[in-house]
Amino acid sequence: MSRQQRDALDALLRSVPRGETPPTLEQQRSGFAAAVARPAPDGVVTRRTVLGGRPTLELEPSTASGRGRLLYLHGGGYVIGSPDTHAGLAGELARRAGLRALSVDYRLAPEHPFPAAVDDGLAAYRELLEAGTDPRDLVVAGDSAGGGLSVATLLAAREAGLPQPAAVVVFSPWVDLTLAGASIRSKEDADPIFTEADVRAYADLYVGAGDRAHPLASPVFGDLTGLPPLLIQVGANEVLLDDAVRLAGHAGAGNVEVTLEVLPGLPHVFQHHYGRLDEADAALDRAARFLTGHLEAGHPDSDRLEPVR
Amino acid sequence: MSRQQRDALDALLRSVPRGETPPTLEQQRSGFAAAVARPAPDGVVTRRTVLGGRPTLELEPSTASGRGRLLYLHGGGYVIGSPDTHAGLAGELARRAGLRALSVDYRLAPEHPFPAAVDDGLAAYRELLEAGTDPRDLVVAGDSAGGGLSVATLLAAREAGLPQPAAVVVFSPWVDLTLAGASIRSKEDADPIFTEADVRAYADLYVGAGDRAHPLASPVFGDLTGLPPLLIQVGANEVLLDDAVRLAGHAGAGNVEVTLEVLPGLPHVFQHHYGRLDEADAALDRAARFLTGHLEAGHPDSDRLEPVR
Repeated sequence: MSRQQRDALDALLRSVPRGETPPTLEQQRSGFAAAVARPAPDGVVTRRTVLGGRPTLELEPSTASGRGRLLYLHGGGYVIGSPDTHAGLAGELARRAGLRALSVDYRLAPEHPFPAAVDDGLAAYRELLEAGTDPRDLVVAGDSAGGGLSVATLLAAREAGLPQPAAVVVFSPWVDLTLAGASIRSKEDADPIFTEADVRAYADLYVGAGDRAHPLASPVFGDLTGLPPLLIQVGANEVLLDDAVRLAGHAGAGNVEVTLEVLPGLPHVFQHHYGRLDEADAALDRAARFLTGHLEAGHPDSDRLEPVR
Repeated sequence: MSRQQRDALDALLRSVPRGETPPTLEQQRSGFAAAVARPAPDGVVTRRTVLGGRPTLELEPSTASGRGRLLYLHGGGYVIGSPDTHAGLAGELARRAGLRALSVDYRLAPEHPFPAAVDDGLAAYRELLEAGTDPRDLVVAGDSAGGGLSVATLLAAREAGLPQPAAVVVFSPWVDLTLAGASIRSKEDADPIFTEADVRAYADLYVGAGDRAHPLASPVFGDLTGLPPLLIQVGANEVLLDDAVRLAGHAGAGNVEVTLEVLPGLPHVFQHHYGRLDEADAALDRAARFLTGHLEAGHPDSDRLEPVR
């Protein structure tokens, strides 16, 4: 089924009409919500809370047990998206990993340009630690701009002298706002969602005249030494393919444990399509195992283990 | 234990004395055999055979069942090494995957420069197919230069109109004989085995005045479209780190399914150190699962499956 599933998804994504005039910010935000949003999965209880001073959606799967916490940072080019548009994606990852998740409604550009999102990510991470969460119980994940923001948040945490979490997972991370990857142009035809101009427009709104190569805006230019084990998943049909590849290389240069998975024929954040695309379910399962594996690996002292393994 | 294991291995590798004068070819070959060679594992029966006109070591684990075959191409800079130096490594991969392996003694440089090795790799692959091996039952693996040769062999097979195998695994592949990766210099201090000069010397012997960017010598410059699922494992302490990363990116550019694993603190082809380095055993287990998973995935018709799954 998977080949048909991939082709159907590609056709669906390409069928989205592009208007004559660029959509307004409001239209982009509501359009994205309509196109992407899926509700939290069955068995995942949601609650509105506040973390680091920002509204936050807590997602508690019935499978959650123990101390593990997932900090989730949604995608949307730093301009659109919210914990609600990503309740399905974050909830599925949380459910499969058996982790309580906290999805932060960080401030968006252009109203709040760089580094507002990083400040909010760091504030959320700091509050989790200050509330007593052991960093070995904490994992971080995000997609697209939220993937870049996940890495930037961990760089900011390191600079602030905070400990690193147990692991980090990023789906189709956007980590180079200078758009220097060759795939930005070479994959334009293959990418059913983004053109170079689309991505550039988000960078314009988020960083404006600022330094687009700043490591907290473009972590691919940062020193990634000290980051926890990192799983990167990306579709081959993405202008952002090389963001993922270069993040892997750059993390390796910093002696970080990295797994990069490139999935052929798939678009940006294909994991959104769990339940109707086999590769999305399989990728989410692998991501969940990666997170839980590193949570367990970080607990060699047996008194912290569950009684039955 | 693993941190101590990694540090001990690094110290051991750095303790190898470097003479005042460069070793002769004969000294390099015997020294490599003494340093690297490990015998085929217990339970793996070896036989001398011939494949594609070249001497070949067949390794048959007692765990082998069914039609699966592993074509293995050893490393050694296209200049040194043999199926005997790699009987341990190839045998361990074969044993863990439950596959009968064929490790080819392809011709070495400088006596037989490029493209002799590729010709021999292709001849071996072709003979396996002509003998009736279903390509869905066939997987390919190699380390270092043998990793590059594995990819080159599959490119040559594609150009020859032959079908691709079910999967390919490469350990620390050397896929750029122009040495264009940044890690060739940036990882020189971290790499306990190779300097840029060492790697350049192998390229000189293999390609000489030829085109070092030829895709069959440097597959990172080839069009990799149509290759089967590819697993790449590499240590972070390698001048060849960027060969692995760029191979992953380039394969992704060609819409190939890729998994790249970067293991921190580990040297070139750390998998040689199975049994005394936990990461080596874990990496070999993952490689074996990758191979068998794709053998099974290629057999949707249930009459080809084992009776008990």
